[in-house]
Amino acid sequence: MEHTAEILSVGTELLLGNIANTDAKDVSEALSALGINVYFHTVVGDNPERVKQAVAIAKTRADIILTTGGLGPTYDDLTKQTLCEAFGKKLEFHEDIAREIEEFFLKRTHGMPLTKNNYQQAYLPEGCTVFHNDWGTAPGCAFEAEGKTVLMLPGPPRECRAMLHACAVPYLKRLSDSEIHSHNLHIIGVGESAVEDRLRPMMLELTNPTLAPYAKEGEVMLRVTAKAGSAEEAEALMAPVIEEVKAAVGDALYGIDTGSLENTILDILREQGRTLAAAESCTGGLISKRITDIPGASRVFLGGAVTYSNGSKTALLGVPAELIREKGAVSAEVAEAMASGARRVTGADVAVAVTGLAGPDGDGTDVPVGTLFVAVSDENGTAVQKHVFEIDRERFRIFAASRALDMVRRRICGLSL
Amino acid sequence: MEHTAEILSVGTELLLGNIANTDAKDVSEALSALGINVYFHTVVGDNPERVKQAVAIAKTRADIILTTGGLGPTYDDLTKQTLCEAFGKKLEFHEDIAREIEEFFLKRTHGMPLTKNNYQQAYLPEGCTVFHNDWGTAPGCAFEAEGKTVLMLPGPPRECRAMLHACAVPYLKRLSDSEIHSHNLHIIGVGESAVEDRLRPMMLELTNPTLAPYAKEGEVMLRVTAKAGSAEEAEALMAPVIEEVKAAVGDALYGIDTGSLENTILDILREQGRTLAAAESCTGGLISKRITDIPGASRVFLGGAVTYSNGSKTALLGVPAELIREKGAVSAEVAEAMASGARRVTGADVAVAVTGLAGPDGDGTDVPVGTLFVAVSDENGTAVQKHVFEIDRERFRIFAASRALDMVRRRICGLSL
Repeated sequence: MEHTAEILSVGTELLLGNIANTDAKDVSEALSALGINVYFHTVVGDNPERVKQAVAIAKTRADIILTTGGLGPTYDDLTKQTLCEAFGKKLEFHEDIAREIEEFFLKRTHGMPLTKNNYQQAYLPEGCTVFHNDWGTAPGCAFEAEGKTVLMLPGPPRECRAMLHACAVPYLKRLSDSEIHSHNLHIIGVGESAVEDRLRPMMLELTNPTLAPYAKEGEVMLRVTAKAGSAEEAEALMAPVIEEVKAAVGDALYGIDTGSLENTILDILREQGRTLAAAESCTGGLISKRITDIPGASRVFLGGAVTYSNGSKTALLGVPAELIREKGAVSAEVAEAMASGARRVTGADVAVAVTGLAGPDGDGTDVPVGTLFVAVSDENGTAVQKHVFEIDRERFRIFAASRALDMVRRRICGLSL
Repeated sequence: MEHTAEILSVGTELLLGNIANTDAKDVSEALSALGINVYFHTVVGDNPERVKQAVAIAKTRADIILTTGGLGPTYDDLTKQTLCEAFGKKLEFHEDIAREIEEFFLKRTHGMPLTKNNYQQAYLPEGCTVFHNDWGTAPGCAFEAEGKTVLMLPGPPRECRAMLHACAVPYLKRLSDSEIHSHNLHIIGVGESAVEDRLRPMMLELTNPTLAPYAKEGEVMLRVTAKAGSAEEAEALMAPVIEEVKAAVGDALYGIDTGSLENTILDILREQGRTLAAAESCTGGLISKRITDIPGASRVFLGGAVTYSNGSKTALLGVPAELIREKGAVSAEVAEAMASGARRVTGADVAVAVTGLAGPDGDGTDVPVGTLFVAVSDENGTAVQKHVFEIDRERFRIFAASRALDMVRRRICGLSL
């Protein structure tokens, strides 16, 4: 059976624009991966009449209603009450949840007093499946009534995301007699429009598996998703599509389900038993930051230098001052000297360096804003590449970091640069 | 007159969870600042029937309907058509917009052919106010009909945000006979719950001006907003509230309308004619990245070192290897040596250093995960602070960078550390 879902997010902070509705994004992504059609998102404030109205509309147009938010301990948290009224259910007190809430308070709040309101969170719709909350105090729940499936998750994004995957997804899987499997295909070095040009006919034509692009600044991510009776069948459906993508984009496909370019590089270098360093001018620390976002990066990444001034390029990396004067700070020669310098100073096996002009202003020379030099150095020598991006400062920095990481990947994998 | 608005976002990519609905956040924030009540967000896919249904519902419960998305050149971009049908309006061809689209293509796509579909974007509702799009090809528009005000903005977040502020906000201001003014108060070093405890009574009590907290990881931001007949009146209403906040949080208030801590620091150092360097272990480049996110940072920020390994602390910053062996990499002494080393090596007037354990794993010593040392060095010597945060790796890094930047602020402003 085809299921249609509506995501109902309750919270005045969303209507004030304090935060973006990332809960709806996370839930939508998970539901789509389960093959459930999400047709509407509704956001409503902490107002009883309007929440009631939104629930009534959702009941007319969805058979799965998933709410986020409004499960907290204050008077304006009214999601449970409203859903119970809409489906003629009572709220029941759960002794075990009251104990969990007490324990959470003892552990996390260092003695902040538990108020009577906190116990309101221990009331849940009669006969529901309880979603225990190991990440906060408000439990979620799910029930079926009047041919509808209702699920409630807490609003704080961290709690919502964790309970979505730990509780809601397993609960919803039971509604389906088929399994959904998917793979993420990570691509870099080929523009999004070029990928779409090559693969659009396939994307439009395919129904099972499906192939869809996901936004990722400076890269392209495609997700292939299959619905089948078993994991093996799903994999068999996806294999030829993955092969077609490989054929279309070649070694621009840097990983399947690897998460990120920095993850891919760290995995490869760890396996090779080699270490990495970075020397950054225009990216100002972004490359190092992205690498060290990954837990365990310290086994591979030794560090590097952020050399924003000419003097620091000389002092930290030993780039000759005459070279900078002669060739300019944004030049192939300085990029090479930064990479080999970072390798020499840190003792890393591989070093990457970037120098460029992120803008908005130029550096007083005739080098145009948007110019980028990337160099990679290893025991076989140093290679350098030039790019020109006509994009704003923020995107320039993201693209520059991604191109630098991709040049490292290609070098350590022995691919042509 | 009180206005109520609904934001209607059209785009299947939102329902698939490819992207979060940041357009609705941006629009909500701008509308709230205008004193317009946003009561609902609705997200619907590129499906004619469901868009029609969503528009019909919005007409019953809002007097301002602002749409985002669905203005593109493809067959499934149907926002204009549906809104025109709902209000009995025709679409008219705009010769000048057709020329603008042609020009945009010539300049930006390097000769990519303009298809017949692109001209669909030159059709707009009869009698509307045109919102010219200087950031893409799809123009927006606004019209009034049946007592409702309808505004349409393109979906790509960059275009939506730019046109929101350039076109939609000025258009909506005319609906009001009063002016809305606001100030952002930036606070760091006092926890969100402590700020709320001290200021909640005032937040709940105030109606004009209002005082509301906005989420910002590692910091607290409050916005005070006043509605008045003139800018002077609005400022007069806000002044005592700002004074009360100052009295409540003291010099934890680091700026008003300054945007970010890094901005504040760069402004102060630029005025002082001084330069800055950073030495980062656990933050892995995040401090440098945040500083160099700001255009013009190069006038103040010389650079620094990302010293993730012990060897690189010695090689790049001259931290004695014995000191690291004796005291441990995560220690007050090493933080101090990193800061003074960074200052010496780069020649900067002020240097900041962080060393800590972001986790999830420890470093094999008895230093607990979550421990952080921050040091700041200038001509008067080096000071160090210890913090312990019991939070996950990602938040630890954000908090560590923010605390380091705040320590720089307090030092260069001559405040107690």
